[in-house]
Amino acid sequence: MAGNSILLAAVSILSVCQQSYFALHVGKARSKYKVTPPAVTGSLEFERIFRAQQNCVEFYPIFLITLWMAGWYFNQVFATCLGLVYIYARHLFFWGYSEAAKKRTVVSALGIANNFLDEYLDLKVAKKLKSSF
Amino acid sequence: MAGNSILLAAVSILSVCQQSYFALHVGKARSKYKVTPPAVTGSLEFERIFRAQQNCVEFYPIFLITLWMAGWYFNQVFATCLGLVYIYARHLFFWGYSEAAKKRTVVSALGIANNFLDEYLDLKVAKKLKSSF
Amino acid sequence: MAGNSILLAAVSILSVCQQSYFALHVGKARSKYKVTPPAVTGSLEFERIFRAQQNCVEFYPIFLITLWMAGWYFNQVFATCLGLVYIYARHLFFWGYSEAAKKRTVVSALGIANNFLDEYLDLKVAKKLKSSF
Repeated sequence: MAGNSILLAAVSILSVCQQSYFALHVGKARSKYKVTPPAVTGSLEFERIFRAQQNCVEFYPIFLITLWMAGWYFNQVFATCLGLVYIYARHLFFWGYSEAAKKRTVVSALGIANNFLDEYLDLKVAKKLKSSF
Repeated sequence: MAGNSILLAAVSILSVCQQSYFALHVGKARSKYKVTPPAVTGSLEFERIFRAQQNCVEFYPIFLITLWMAGWYFNQVFATCLGLVYIYARHLFFWGYSEAAKKRTVVSALGIANNFLDEYLDLKVAKKLKSSF
Repeated sequence: MAGNSILLAAVSILSVCQQSYFALHVGKARSKYKVTPPAVTGSLEFERIFRAQQNCVEFYPIFLITLWMAGWYFNQVFATCLGLVYIYARHLFFWGYSEAAKKRTVVSALGIANNFLDEYLDLKVAKKLKSSF
């Protein structure tokens, strides 16, 4: 198992680094916007960064299971590539979400691979549908 | 490993679909109850759906580890059956929690398998004990 | 796989018990401080316990992946030992965080292993740096 899952392991380690980095960024944002724990509200900028990280946390086990199952039962190289795309999409999502809502629209256009996973984009689609009728 | 864990993999994929569905439902609720991100409060109905999903998210890695360890070290068929019971219990929990608190009581009676995992039922038991004395 | 990962499995099961215990404790705190679901605010004591558990939840998949990857690709005994240190550090972190902020400082001194994972300590370091200049 260990021998023939090396690519999946590498992608997993990369995603671990990304998740840790997001968590660290939330910690820095706490300091920057003076949001003392255990509070998670009080600064809109902090809330945005916090929600972005929370969204990544929510989908992280889903990502891992999908990665490993796809790698074990279908094709490891294919799963690895999709995993890298997901990590890149998360990178765009996190920084886009953390910044202005205006910027988030740009990200939603780029992060196609992330689309079906993103609860917030769902809202955007719903709004577009509303404004169309 | 891959060859003899096919049932565990199938249950995992099913649970991934369920978790994604819950997340999608939170996204829809955001739109329905007009809770603009990054806010997670403002509508009691949304908060209920959001907390229900968050509770599922919290227990998801616990579920996965228990499923795979039970399947690898005890019995795969047994682990698979318990996994399916858990997914069904989560289904009842999510819809029960999302709806009125009154309805939740019904779910708490049904979701026995979920009992020991559920922080909120704990509260209920404590209340019953208080009213008994 | 199953045969030669028994130590990793044991540490994983132990961490599952710990996570379940933290979740149970949040449920008890809901009852104690009268925070009715779906609310997660209203009592500073509850919020502290809740945030402590949420922080553990956030890092749980990161911990699991690191444990298994280290165990599979480096050394199982080494990974197991680090895993046990992490679980102990989380134990200190949870109880320290749940209690007074003053107490938390003591824990931050003890929980060195947990340091790099802890977003909140980051804030503390920043404060110290500020007061130094």
